[in-house]
Amino acid sequence: MSLSAIAFARQNHARFLDELKALLRIPSVSTLPEHKEDCRRAAETLAAELRRIGMENVRLIETEGHPLVYADWLHAAGKPTALCYGHYDVQPPDPLDEWVSPPFEPTERNGNIYARGAVDDKGQVWAQVKALESLLAADGALTINVRVLLEGEEEVGGEGIANYVASKPPELKSDFALVCDTELFAPGLPTLCVGLRGMIYTEIEVRGARTDLHSGMYGGAAPNPFTALAQIIARLKDENGHILIPGFYDGIIPPSAAELAAWRSLPFDEEEYRKTEVGAKQLVGEAGYTVLERTWARPSLDVHGMPGGFTGAGAKTVIPAKAQAKVSMRLVPGMTPARAFEQYKSYVEKIAPAGVDVEVRLIHSGDPCLVTVDNPYIQAATRALHEVWGKDTVFIRSGGSIPIVGDFDRHLGLPSVMMGFGLPDDNLHAPNEKFNLKNFELGIESLIRFLEEAGR
Amino acid sequence: MSLSAIAFARQNHARFLDELKALLRIPSVSTLPEHKEDCRRAAETLAAELRRIGMENVRLIETEGHPLVYADWLHAAGKPTALCYGHYDVQPPDPLDEWVSPPFEPTERNGNIYARGAVDDKGQVWAQVKALESLLAADGALTINVRVLLEGEEEVGGEGIANYVASKPPELKSDFALVCDTELFAPGLPTLCVGLRGMIYTEIEVRGARTDLHSGMYGGAAPNPFTALAQIIARLKDENGHILIPGFYDGIIPPSAAELAAWRSLPFDEEEYRKTEVGAKQLVGEAGYTVLERTWARPSLDVHGMPGGFTGAGAKTVIPAKAQAKVSMRLVPGMTPARAFEQYKSYVEKIAPAGVDVEVRLIHSGDPCLVTVDNPYIQAATRALHEVWGKDTVFIRSGGSIPIVGDFDRHLGLPSVMMGFGLPDDNLHAPNEKFNLKNFELGIESLIRFLEEAGR
Repeated sequence: MSLSAIAFARQNHARFLDELKALLRIPSVSTLPEHKEDCRRAAETLAAELRRIGMENVRLIETEGHPLVYADWLHAAGKPTALCYGHYDVQPPDPLDEWVSPPFEPTERNGNIYARGAVDDKGQVWAQVKALESLLAADGALTINVRVLLEGEEEVGGEGIANYVASKPPELKSDFALVCDTELFAPGLPTLCVGLRGMIYTEIEVRGARTDLHSGMYGGAAPNPFTALAQIIARLKDENGHILIPGFYDGIIPPSAAELAAWRSLPFDEEEYRKTEVGAKQLVGEAGYTVLERTWARPSLDVHGMPGGFTGAGAKTVIPAKAQAKVSMRLVPGMTPARAFEQYKSYVEKIAPAGVDVEVRLIHSGDPCLVTVDNPYIQAATRALHEVWGKDTVFIRSGGSIPIVGDFDRHLGLPSVMMGFGLPDDNLHAPNEKFNLKNFELGIESLIRFLEEAGR
Repeated sequence: MSLSAIAFARQNHARFLDELKALLRIPSVSTLPEHKEDCRRAAETLAAELRRIGMENVRLIETEGHPLVYADWLHAAGKPTALCYGHYDVQPPDPLDEWVSPPFEPTERNGNIYARGAVDDKGQVWAQVKALESLLAADGALTINVRVLLEGEEEVGGEGIANYVASKPPELKSDFALVCDTELFAPGLPTLCVGLRGMIYTEIEVRGARTDLHSGMYGGAAPNPFTALAQIIARLKDENGHILIPGFYDGIIPPSAAELAAWRSLPFDEEEYRKTEVGAKQLVGEAGYTVLERTWARPSLDVHGMPGGFTGAGAKTVIPAKAQAKVSMRLVPGMTPARAFEQYKSYVEKIAPAGVDVEVRLIHSGDPCLVTVDNPYIQAATRALHEVWGKDTVFIRSGGSIPIVGDFDRHLGLPSVMMGFGLPDDNLHAPNEKFNLKNFELGIESLIRFLEEAGR
């Protein structure tokens, strides 16, 4: 066991952090065309670093969108092969005025580093790279074969990595995937995620009049796309949070009694969560389910924005010709994106009010997935985490989606070890995203130990 | 009767149009702070021109917002005094990509001039100024006393002119107001507007969680402000266009039987209006009322935009902390803005769903108004219009709001002659706003004749 790799990581922690800051300064916002070159720059930065630490066959793999980064080290004869996954792209930083420090100027405060992408996912990608560096620097070799595959379209559901994985390239032949894009259930509590919700992300576009009209002249005669959208959205869920799309819940596979019992024993207080983490006066959602059930094992539906019309300061008395709603649904085991979208689209078209044309578009989607916990890599992970954190691992699910986990399973037959070091209050996809510095450090150590354990 | 003023106007038509273009190039968008100086520049341009043509006491009157422009010519002893009103501010030009030619680069096409403000209201203000110029140039004097009062906050409901008028300044003492901000009912059909809807323009702000949240992690537990807004908006009107705010319709004064009969005789085809003017697949609004009744004599409610959340291209899986809806209601005689807003606010607060905080704000408001048609100035206007257009005047109402008409009545006791030369398809407040060049020319001649008739 390589105490020296751990020692190397500890000795170099300040440098690791400086390097992470440089990566965080690159605004690799994958959904915004103006940041296309920044995404490539982030990919090239990672490729250069993988090359520098001794990884081999390092290269960018072009896609129709942002490039993938590939690297490997395959000299551990007879040992299994890990496929290390992460993503270098980040969410848009808006609303900018709510950031305490600028999103692309990483800033340390209160034992955290604040920046867009700090924890989702650059910090966790860097932890993987630094674990590999520590092992290679201290030992001159790895005790496991490693492939690295990073993508730049996770936040936009880009098809680049999915298409590549679906082509079953020989260079991805591995025994398991290590996915670092999740979080600890609570500070100091080692956690493995074994279930993810899927999703469909859609746009509804409503068109009324041919052109924008004056609401004085035409109010009372011309259809209003926002009113129509409101009527549609109001009929997607009832006041108890129950989704009204016919057949939407059919076939859902509920968690086992044992899993539900384990969830009940987790350190989780709904009132504390409401106050501290959500900060709303009341939680919402389906009656009869706990918060963990609602966010991990039940589908949900959210509206993210409603572009169109006049959104500036003050008043403009316009009946806009068109308006949109960005609507996504999270899916759980037993549901498929294709069937859910078809049900949703048919229902929206059916409930569309008179006077308007409605178009429903699928932007992207991902399957829900569940990982079995009895494979040797999950077992190796629990041993490694116990060594670093001194506690038994808890198995949780995540309400979010990591579509690649389903792709690894479906196309390459790989189980995924979802080991992540974020915290529930890290403000993913929100202003003031952060990564706890201790978790960055212990994350690197956990990954070092895990790669050793998995290679035994 | 001054044939020479008409002749002067005809001889100088090309110059008048060039001057109008120069005015239209100034982007005096009153609602956007970055155009504050442009608004002042438009005011100064008008003041300079009024001075040049021989008007007296020309000056800007400062307000808390954009300045008023005042001028007078008071040498027609024993004659009545007209107060000529218009506004030099314009609506924002967005959506920019739907303009065939740039909004602030006036362009002639198909016998029209296209530009933001072409008809609303710079073209009509300029027609007044050019009528005064023609009379003063041809005759050396007017046969009526004239005061000019122009404002720069009509499109934002600014209080500058209202406060000024409410102070009853001696310099506004007049016998009637001439308001040029309306339209012909149909091409070639001389029209006076004798009724306007009032309005309240509001914002509803809904707040859920303390900060933006990831919809994967929190979907099914955190309140969604857009979903809440949709539920609120969907309950403001039923599917038949009936506004559901309790008491909202109480006290409405319906049009007289004679007025309704006159409206039925107007050249108006609802199917043609739907296809050509609105361009929607179906009209909406209250069952049991014609389009003219719905847009002139019944209240309406529209949503203009829903700021907040993610509105860029692609996908962002955010549950926004807050979202807004810009909602306005048009009011008819018998309703008051104060009562309507109170009813609306109470209702919105009552129907707000669980989990969110709701704030309802009034942005601005205006009273509905009706003008009696038996005063001598309306009679003079019908004679002048008959001379220029060769047809009897039709009396219509407008669904829009011109709050100043109510202010002139309430504070100065002035009846308003609402004489305008726009057309129903002039795209007010929309891309490709235009003013028919023939209507600009005949508008100037109509105003020359009217000022002569009113001074007899």
